[in-house]
Order: sequence, then structure tokens, then C-alpha cells
Amino acid sequence: MSVRIGIMGYGNIGRAVECAIKQSDDLELVAVFTRRDPDSVKILTPSAKVYKAEDAEKLTDAIDVMIMCGGSATDLPVQTPNFAKLFCVVDSFDTHARIPEHFANVDAAAKESGKLAAISIGWDPGLFSIARLYSGAILPNGKDYTFWGRGVSQGHSDAIRRVEGVLDARQYTVPVPEAVEAVRSGVNPELTTRQKHTRECFVVAKEGADKARIEKEIKEMPNYFADYDTSVTFITMEELKRDHSGIPHGGRVIRTGATGWDNEHKAAIEYSLKLDSNPEFTSCVLVAYARAVYRLNKEGKTGCVTAFDIAPSYLSPKSGEELRKNLL
Amino acid sequence: MSVRIGIMGYGNIGRAVECAIKQSDDLELVAVFTRRDPDSVKILTPSAKVYKAEDAEKLTDAIDVMIMCGGSATDLPVQTPNFAKLFCVVDSFDTHARIPEHFANVDAAAKESGKLAAISIGWDPGLFSIARLYSGAILPNGKDYTFWGRGVSQGHSDAIRRVEGVLDARQYTVPVPEAVEAVRSGVNPELTTRQKHTRECFVVAKEGADKARIEKEIKEMPNYFADYDTSVTFITMEELKRDHSGIPHGGRVIRTGATGWDNEHKAAIEYSLKLDSNPEFTSCVLVAYARAVYRLNKEGKTGCVTAFDIAPSYLSPKSGEELRKNLL
Repeated sequence: MSVRIGIMGYGNIGRAVECAIKQSDDLELVAVFTRRDPDSVKILTPSAKVYKAEDAEKLTDAIDVMIMCGGSATDLPVQTPNFAKLFCVVDSFDTHARIPEHFANVDAAAKESGKLAAISIGWDPGLFSIARLYSGAILPNGKDYTFWGRGVSQGHSDAIRRVEGVLDARQYTVPVPEAVEAVRSGVNPELTTRQKHTRECFVVAKEGADKARIEKEIKEMPNYFADYDTSVTFITMEELKRDHSGIPHGGRVIRTGATGWDNEHKAAIEYSLKLDSNPEFTSCVLVAYARAVYRLNKEGKTGCVTAFDIAPSYLSPKSGEELRKNLL
Repeated sequence: MSVRIGIMGYGNIGRAVECAIKQSDDLELVAVFTRRDPDSVKILTPSAKVYKAEDAEKLTDAIDVMIMCGGSATDLPVQTPNFAKLFCVVDSFDTHARIPEHFANVDAAAKESGKLAAISIGWDPGLFSIARLYSGAILPNGKDYTFWGRGVSQGHSDAIRRVEGVLDARQYTVPVPEAVEAVRSGVNPELTTRQKHTRECFVVAKEGADKARIEKEIKEMPNYFADYDTSVTFITMEELKRDHSGIPHGGRVIRTGATGWDNEHKAAIEYSLKLDSNPEFTSCVLVAYARAVYRLNKEGKTGCVTAFDIAPSYLSPKSGEELRKNLL
């Protein structure tokens, strides 16, 4: 029997979760929940239905795992604990500073309901976090570095769009190749924010807007751009649509460390991703963890967990025997 | 209190395990067991003692986890099940075809004793296996490839040493760069054994030996070399000692797959290692899993497991709160 999945929120991630479920025979999309008018939301899966978000509570018997596809800023902090009272849930909460608080809220809700919730699932937080954990446990005498990109940062693109005179924009985060090479060499360099990444901005300005002022405002924007070497390129809306419509991303976690009695040898572990579509890949991760959450809850596990707490075998539909025979 | 570790067998791996334990404050080497005369075995850790292998059964109260450092060919198939009757154990069993049988034997022994045993721990099998599992579960519509090297293969070096007229030899396994690039590009190539790796042999011949015959015998050796493009370079013993005394290794697991409703996007996951010392790194992995085995057994888990069955958090000495705060 398939694991029956619900999708809460049908934006970029919700749609991509629907695509990821299609690739797994042991998972079945049952329902999509939306805050919009359900009749206005067209989904791709013929056998699934669209419901109003508030109708989810009537479908607790029909859904095994609810994948939370709202945003980390305002949706997930409220929704994930609420729905963990009714369902096993998986979310991609990525506001790092608020993870302890979110974890505690979701844990309390899920323990009370006897459900299992996995939070902060995706590639960072998520797969990159696991890479840091494994590497750090294996090479305690070392240092790790995370590089993001080349890829589109939605948050930085949004920040540019809020500058007066900007119609649309796309921001790419780009790792500095020399920094990556220095890290790989094992010299454990101290790198400033500026030395690790550059930021490339492609901006469509309104007609007659002061481009010099826009460029200055972007480059001096605190937190987002001031600490980076930032380039601003003005392009037309046609160019933006033609050359920058994708949402690629990726990055790498590198840890180098020393082994041997006198730390005489070096070792380097590198985990990297190259993704044509950031939301689609993130959703592939969410869906694999939905399978894991279902199986762990069946075994009696409740409360809140992260990718750290889930053994790899739970992510795969294959049996232990099959995994040992073909992948070990 | 520290986790008290025993080392069974003091060869390359045993010595490297001793070095790895030194890097972790929460682990303590208590005893080294050997089939040689204990007085003839000098170890590095002042606080640990050397015992005869058969004395291990008297030390069940003094050791929390025994790390099995014998060979996969004849030692581990006998030793790991035997010692799992007395201790929690970790081994690096890597004879792939015999893993199901080894798993069953160790599982039966450890279930009976109430101990936990982790087998086939290292980097391949081990970390590479985990990389294949995670990647395959996340990108079900894809294909993975494992490349080994550039690094020393002990098995292939030994095979050359058995050729008549050979004094000593070192064999490097080398991935074919074009094959690695083809895989990374996402075209999912079909690659033969010959297309994936080449083999470089550095051979010291006895004086007066027929080098042409030695080269021919190596290149035509079934299983080891016949299916590869193999180069044979004759060097002096001095050159071997000067240039080939290390035991470096490494490699990479790459999986590329498609995401999206119509498989319209590509994604690539790559996990790679670059190691100055293969046995030292393998031992770092064994030691991290010794910590995990100790903790899981304390929670009541018994029987045999592999790296697939152990959640990442168990490998780290850090608490859940610390991991979520600093690594998630």
C-alpha cells in the first residue's frame, strides 16, 4: 500500500513536491490544500483533489504525511506545530536563528498527538547539514566550509525588487573559485564573507529611473550586499525572461582535517550539488523524508526530529537486504 | 565518562584506530589485543595495555566497544561473530559478495548476547554506501557511478608481488577523467570497466628477471588487470621507497538524475574523498561508529547493523541542541 501524502500550500515548493511524488511508486498524492479558492487551483495529478486549507482536519484518516510547503517567515512557524497535532508532517523551515524555538513548538505538538514531525528538511538545512555532521564526526581535527552557488537567491532578488525604480531582478550567489581552491588544499584559511562569495545582480529598471542611484542603493544595502563584492547589470525585461527564468542553485560543503598520531596526514571530504531547479530538488528531499517519517512513526517514534536523527535506510523504499546487496 | 575501546589486531588499521581515538576526548583506548607475543608489540598510548587475543574474554567489563582490525579474507568472518558474543563490535568487512552471510552470522551472535555490532564500516563500504543510498532515495530517476582513486590498491599490489621475478610493487587505481566528466554532465553514460579506471603499476624486479615477461603477466592477469588499460613502470627499490611509501586513496560517488513533472531538469550530487592515508581515514570512520554503537546499545539496540541503519547524530559527541544550533 502506498504512503498517502498531502501538500499544504501550492506555490513553487508545493508544485515541485507534486512532481517528486510522481517519481516514487510507493507514494501517492491524495490532496493539495490551499488558502486560495480551491476551484482556482489547477494541479497536475488527476487522482488528487484540491481542498481549502481549513478542511485538512476532516482528512486525518486519508493522509499519512502532510508536506508543509509554506514560507519560513510567517507560514511554517504557525502551520507546522498546528498540523503536527493532526498529521505526521515534514517542513523545510530554514530561518536558522529560530530553529530551536520551532523545534520546541513542533516537538510539543507532535508528542501530544503521537505523530512524528521532521523539520528543516531540504539541502541546506538538510543534506548539507548531514554532510557537516558526518565530516565533523569523522575528522574532529579539522574545519568545514560551506559555499553556495552559483545559484539564484530568492531573498536577495526580493530585496532588490524593493528598491525604488526596480521592476524586476535576479540575484546570483557565486562562490569565489580561489577560496574554494584554498579550502580544498587543506590550509584551513580564515575567509571573510567577502572572500567567500560574490553577488551578481541583474536588474530591470523602470523607464526613466536613476540607475546610478539604484546601483548604489543595492551595493550599500546592509546584510544583503554591503559585505560582498556586488556587480549590478541593467537588462531589459525581455532579457530577464529569456536568460534568467530558471531557479538553478547548488553549492558544496568541504571539510579538511588531519589524521595520524601527529596529525601528519591530510584528508578532505567534499559534498556538492548542482541543481537546475532548486525547488524541485528541495522537494525531492522533502518527499524522501516523508517516507522516512511515515515508517518511523509506524515504529512508534513521535515528536520532532531533523535530518540528523533519521537513519539513511528509512529514506529508501528498498528493503535492508536489498540495500546491503546493491548499495553497500 | 569515556567510551572504553579495545583494538583487536594491531596492523595498519589497528595502529590507525589508535591514532583516531587520540583525537576524541570522549573515547579512551583501554587495550590492544594481538596474536603475537604481547611483549613484542609496542603501542603509542601510554595508558593502554597489550594483551593476547585470547585474553579478551576476561576483559568484558573493561571494554565498551571492540574495534575489529583484522582482514576481511580470513580474520573478520570468524572473529566478528565470535567477539560479538562478548562485546559491542565494529568491523570494516569489505568482501562484498559475502556481506549477507557475514551480516547473518554477526546478527545471530549479537542478538544472543544483547550486544550491537556494526559491520562494513569505512569509506567503501561505508561513507560511499551512504552517499549512494541518500542520492538514490532523493533522485530515484537517475543513475550513480563510483570512481576510486587515484590511490593505492593493496590487493592489486599484492597480486603483482606474486608474479615471479617481482621484489616489490605498488599499484595505483586511477579514474579516467573523461569518464568522470561525462558522468557529471548528466548524460548517464554506459561505461565499461576499461572506460572507468586505468591501473598504474610500479614494479621492482629482481636482478636479471625477464621484465618483458613480468609486464605481460601483469597486464594479462584475469580479474585484476586484463580488463583495464594497465601501465607497468620498472623502478628501483630506492625509488619505490622514496616515491611510493604512502597509502593515499580517495574517490567519488556521483549521481545525476532528473527532476520535474516531465523530467525536464537535471540534478547532480557528488560525494568525494581525497586521503593522504587510506587506513588512517578508514579508522576515523570506525572510531566514529564505535561511539554510535555504544550509544545505540545503551538505548537497547542489539544485533547487526550497517552504516545504513545508524542516524547521523549518533556519530557525533555533540548533543542534539548543539548540533541543531551549529550544524543544521
